Amino acid sequence: MAALVVLAIPATALADPLPSWNDGDTKKAITTFVESVTREGSPDFVAEGERIATFDNDGTLWAEQPVYFQLLYAIDQVKKMAPDHPEWKSQEPFASVIKGDMKSVIASGKQGLMKIIAATHANMTAEEFQANVASWLKTARHPKTDKPFNEMVYKPMLELMDYLRANGFKTFIVSGGGVDFMRVFAEETYGIPPDQVVGSSLKAKYEVHNGKPAIIKLPEINLIDDKEGKPVGIHQYIGQRPIFVAGNSDGDYQMLEWATSGDGPRFGLILHHTDAKREWAYDRKSHIGQLNKGLDDAKEKGWTVIDMQKDWKVVFPFDKQ
Amino acid sequence: MAALVVLAIPATALADPLPSWNDGDTKKAITTFVESVTREGSPDFVAEGERIATFDNDGTLWAEQPVYFQLLYAIDQVKKMAPDHPEWKSQEPFASVIKGDMKSVIASGKQGLMKIIAATHANMTAEEFQANVASWLKTARHPKTDKPFNEMVYKPMLELMDYLRANGFKTFIVSGGGVDFMRVFAEETYGIPPDQVVGSSLKAKYEVHNGKPAIIKLPEINLIDDKEGKPVGIHQYIGQRPIFVAGNSDGDYQMLEWATSGDGPRFGLILHHTDAKREWAYDRKSHIGQLNKGLDDAKEKGWTVIDMQKDWKVVFPFDKQ
Ligand SMILES: [Ca+2]
Ligand SMILES: [Ca+2]
Repeated sequence: MAALVVLAIPATALADPLPSWNDGDTKKAITTFVESVTREGSPDFVAEGERIATFDNDGTLWAEQPVYFQLLYAIDQVKKMAPDHPEWKSQEPFASVIKGDMKSVIASGKQGLMKIIAATHANMTAEEFQANVASWLKTARHPKTDKPFNEMVYKPMLELMDYLRANGFKTFIVSGGGVDFMRVFAEETYGIPPDQVVGSSLKAKYEVHNGKPAIIKLPEINLIDDKEGKPVGIHQYIGQRPIFVAGNSDGDYQMLEWATSGDGPRFGLILHHTDAKREWAYDRKSHIGQLNKGLDDAKEKGWTVIDMQKDWKVVFPFDKQ
Repeated sequence: MAALVVLAIPATALADPLPSWNDGDTKKAITTFVESVTREGSPDFVAEGERIATFDNDGTLWAEQPVYFQLLYAIDQVKKMAPDHPEWKSQEPFASVIKGDMKSVIASGKQGLMKIIAATHANMTAEEFQANVASWLKTARHPKTDKPFNEMVYKPMLELMDYLRANGFKTFIVSGGGVDFMRVFAEETYGIPPDQVVGSSLKAKYEVHNGKPAIIKLPEINLIDDKEGKPVGIHQYIGQRPIFVAGNSDGDYQMLEWATSGDGPRFGLILHHTDAKREWAYDRKSHIGQLNKGLDDAKEKGWTVIDMQKDWKVVFPFDKQ
């Protein structure tokens, strides 16, 4: 009899596809949505080619505290390059970077940041840049956890992306972070191939140098894939309005707004960092990943808000389960 | 005994994956390459995620004579919009477009073309633009064959893309044509989803109008995905150097050069239009799809040149077989 009961349950219902998520409204909202858009004959059925899901990266797929990891990369690169640039000792923002005076680095503003980007992200081939990032990822460690940065990823979100892909979704990253930076680890870390990563980018040019063709990264912004830039980036790179979007800050507001206002079933997801113990707790007044308008409007817009502390059994893959 | 011989041949060898190609050096070069990069243990084996193939569109996947089909779309749109723009009767290049004076349209140069693009491709939402293109494709007919434009595709190239995909390649379009234009038909016509189409693009902005968010196409060039722009477009959108590239004009030279100069096995393919009877014959001096340097350098670079007349059994799907 028990065996018969078990046989009557569809195989998909037997294994929990989201084991790191606590049972509750959030998890239920996700699985209900996925089941409704994938069930043939359902009024909410969405054809496979239109099951587009986009995920922000910093603070949504991996952590972003104490500062964006890509900024830590840039700082490490400046320090590594400093011996070849004695002039930096008296040039801002480099002097402050070398001294480790982060307050002055941040005070140097957009112009200072652009100088750091130009020095560490441009005037080299795309392949040189990617080799530098790969080598940094191997050795650099997070200042708080002492873990490699590509282990500072959220286990529940990895499961969510797997679950979506198993249900015919095509998953994309749509992030304010640099696209060439993320492409180095996105496939291995998230199962997302390079062409499904959308991000901020520098302009580039094609050049044949000594008979060897290469892509040279230029010290000039091409796309800032943040805020209004996210729907634009999705339009230009993906060419379809996603039906499932996930983010964690007001930088994702327009992506959430655009995606969830389309016809048919739509799902907007916001990760609210509420877990000072296992991760960090921050939102409306954070210097990074500020979430304010998104929290105000989530209910009215029908967006689901993840309460990290309450909804997640585990945060990082290296956490005790 | 005969049965045993048949059983000894791998199943994949039984059905010809390229039935519209005549046997010969070109077809052999393609299948030899694909077999070598997919055979596990082969010194030329390429992992599935790195099997990136890019195809030019105009003159490579579909015809481009007497002029680019997208230009015919723009001309038809100008004529359709003319009643609402009485001022165009005395404004170039619109006056010439309306009169059907193509010589004067072409004489209006880049500036004239940009005015036509602005009028027909911009200042509307991306969704409006795509609906216009879809409706045009349904009714417009090619001036010579009287066929819908999306039937003016090359059957052998459709088979080639299917064959590559069946062998674990991810196929992309990388074209000088407009990305939003091609995305309307690329999936149905070529089996290539919107996010795998790279092309020239206009800038765009995100706007919420009367509570309805939309992407507005702007009358400003974002990317010209031609010549040096093709490797740059591939870098920005795909993020990997292709191992298989196909084109038909010197606009593809840099894409061929960049892709085939990478490490490991690489395949460059040029479609030479040599068939005045079934299609068109043109190359070094053509006003469209000029192929000059590519023909000069193909042998030295190791690129395979398709002789359309000799290598293809069938050109269009609607041809008698
Ligand atoms: Ca974020
Ligand atoms: Ca072409």
